[in-house]
Amino acid sequence: MRIIAIDAMGGENAPKAIVKAVLQAKAELTETKFILFGNAKQINKLVGSDKDRVEVVATTEVINDEDEPVKAIRSKKDSSLVVAARYVKEGKADALLSLGNTGALLSCGIFIIGRIKGIARPGLMPTLPVKNSDDGFNMIDVGANAKSKPEYILAWARMAVYYAEKVRGIANPRVALLNNGAESDKGDDVHQAAYQLLLDSDLNFVGNIEGNELLEGNADVVATDGFTGNAVLKNIEGTSSVLIHLLKDSLLNNGLKAKVGALLIKNALKGLISKFDTAKYGGAVLLGVNAPVVKTHGRSDQRAIYFTLKQIDKILSEKIIDEFKAEFSAAE
Amino acid sequence: MRIIAIDAMGGENAPKAIVKAVLQAKAELTETKFILFGNAKQINKLVGSDKDRVEVVATTEVINDEDEPVKAIRSKKDSSLVVAARYVKEGKADALLSLGNTGALLSCGIFIIGRIKGIARPGLMPTLPVKNSDDGFNMIDVGANAKSKPEYILAWARMAVYYAEKVRGIANPRVALLNNGAESDKGDDVHQAAYQLLLDSDLNFVGNIEGNELLEGNADVVATDGFTGNAVLKNIEGTSSVLIHLLKDSLLNNGLKAKVGALLIKNALKGLISKFDTAKYGGAVLLGVNAPVVKTHGRSDQRAIYFTLKQIDKILSEKIIDEFKAEFSAAE
Repeated sequence: MRIIAIDAMGGENAPKAIVKAVLQAKAELTETKFILFGNAKQINKLVGSDKDRVEVVATTEVINDEDEPVKAIRSKKDSSLVVAARYVKEGKADALLSLGNTGALLSCGIFIIGRIKGIARPGLMPTLPVKNSDDGFNMIDVGANAKSKPEYILAWARMAVYYAEKVRGIANPRVALLNNGAESDKGDDVHQAAYQLLLDSDLNFVGNIEGNELLEGNADVVATDGFTGNAVLKNIEGTSSVLIHLLKDSLLNNGLKAKVGALLIKNALKGLISKFDTAKYGGAVLLGVNAPVVKTHGRSDQRAIYFTLKQIDKILSEKIIDEFKAEFSAAE
Repeated sequence: MRIIAIDAMGGENAPKAIVKAVLQAKAELTETKFILFGNAKQINKLVGSDKDRVEVVATTEVINDEDEPVKAIRSKKDSSLVVAARYVKEGKADALLSLGNTGALLSCGIFIIGRIKGIARPGLMPTLPVKNSDDGFNMIDVGANAKSKPEYILAWARMAVYYAEKVRGIANPRVALLNNGAESDKGDDVHQAAYQLLLDSDLNFVGNIEGNELLEGNADVVATDGFTGNAVLKNIEGTSSVLIHLLKDSLLNNGLKAKVGALLIKNALKGLISKFDTAKYGGAVLLGVNAPVVKTHGRSDQRAIYFTLKQIDKILSEKIIDEFKAEFSAAE
């Protein structure tokens, strides 16, 4: 039986959307058990009477978005997140999911669950949409590390390729390096050296990719230093959200004609937005620690959380963490 | 008389759109002379008979986008770009504009026109749009440098503030540092040190800004290392262009209803696109060299080039380069 530990108190729709998503996923994932951590009274009420493969663990504290991550996981020892992470550490659960404070979750992954031997720095990896396909691409690292070395970037790429193959079903994933130009000598020392490491590896390395090409679908895995990856990931979110805001705004504030037009294009727009619906890919995975540690957006609704639970179940059933342990521990 | 040297052979619409823009700007900027460098036969035909304040200098070579920048400016000594840069170097012109190879233009700025004493590294600075205002913001550096030091970032911010004040008319510009979180200790060593330098300066420093906030309009100047700035700038372009492509696509391929809707919202969409019309801000300026060196997009049409000529004229009339020379040379 696969067991997923879930911080039921994180995110804007906690615990209701989380519990509902668990019940939805449970009906489908019949070999998986779900442990919910948080306010037991609230959660039990939402779970109802059917306790098959659902366990509730009462915790008394909650880590908020404003909490300083490392301090919070040390001081709030009975928080839903920390207790859930301890369950994974102690082998009572196989994976950790939270919608709350990203820094605190990463800290739980690195300091409580622990990094895989041979991985110097775990990397955070979302799956992002591309223009003309439903496949999307993985970008790693998007901010678990402010400082990156070439060998970290190579290890992140290796793990992401394995994820793209096993979890997303992409054959021989194309790997690109986010850089400031196409040529092999582009970038600073870190990126020049990372280019060479990727080129000399057995990965399907297709070269450098620039910021404007990310959503074009020319790579299945984009390796990047955590600082740039963080800026670019947030920028994709910010730019999309501003454009969609301006689009809505211009449709509503340009008279009756535009309003009628807006009604007529409603379905077409829904199609557009579903293209950019990242919920179906699940959450961002911290790769390089001893268990799947997954962050999904604080604003996630039941559907997004349901997809993330399915993603985690797939990661577990494909045993990719065991693979990482075998590959990287041997190298150390 | 202010004199602008123009590489008339760069960009997709050269030389026609360039010459037309010069004639349009000339009518308005009555104290400015324009020197066009390139194929004299083609250019003269476009200029026509009125040669008042328009000079044509015949050159025999052209630097293409595919040329390696530093090599190209050394080997193509009679190219429109290099000869134009030499005119500026020799005091026969006051500013340089090109729509062609960005790297070659930057190399001309740094190696031919030369950096200002006291500026270790010039920085490239576009003006970008924001959500709820026509003011936009300046971001510097967006890729003249792959490696950045904290003191470069401070110098770029100082120059951009001066530009925002004098050329864009922004009072007391708010300066932010692009970083991976709001807190003062965020980022790698370079960004932590840059934060302190900005904080200790006399600039109106408002703290760190993250990639998702760039277009929100919370800063007038965003200082960034050239590597991240390059990735983010290109990503803004790429994300916007993919979204607009998907929008058009979904309106055209969702049946008659969507097509009729598209007609009705046409004007509203034009308003949206004009919000994101960066042509009105002119081109990206290489700050820190002995004259204004301006790059505008290779796809620019007459209108965009016209706005860039007005921008350059404003930079010259405000004498901001003299100001930089006085301020930074004294410090060295």
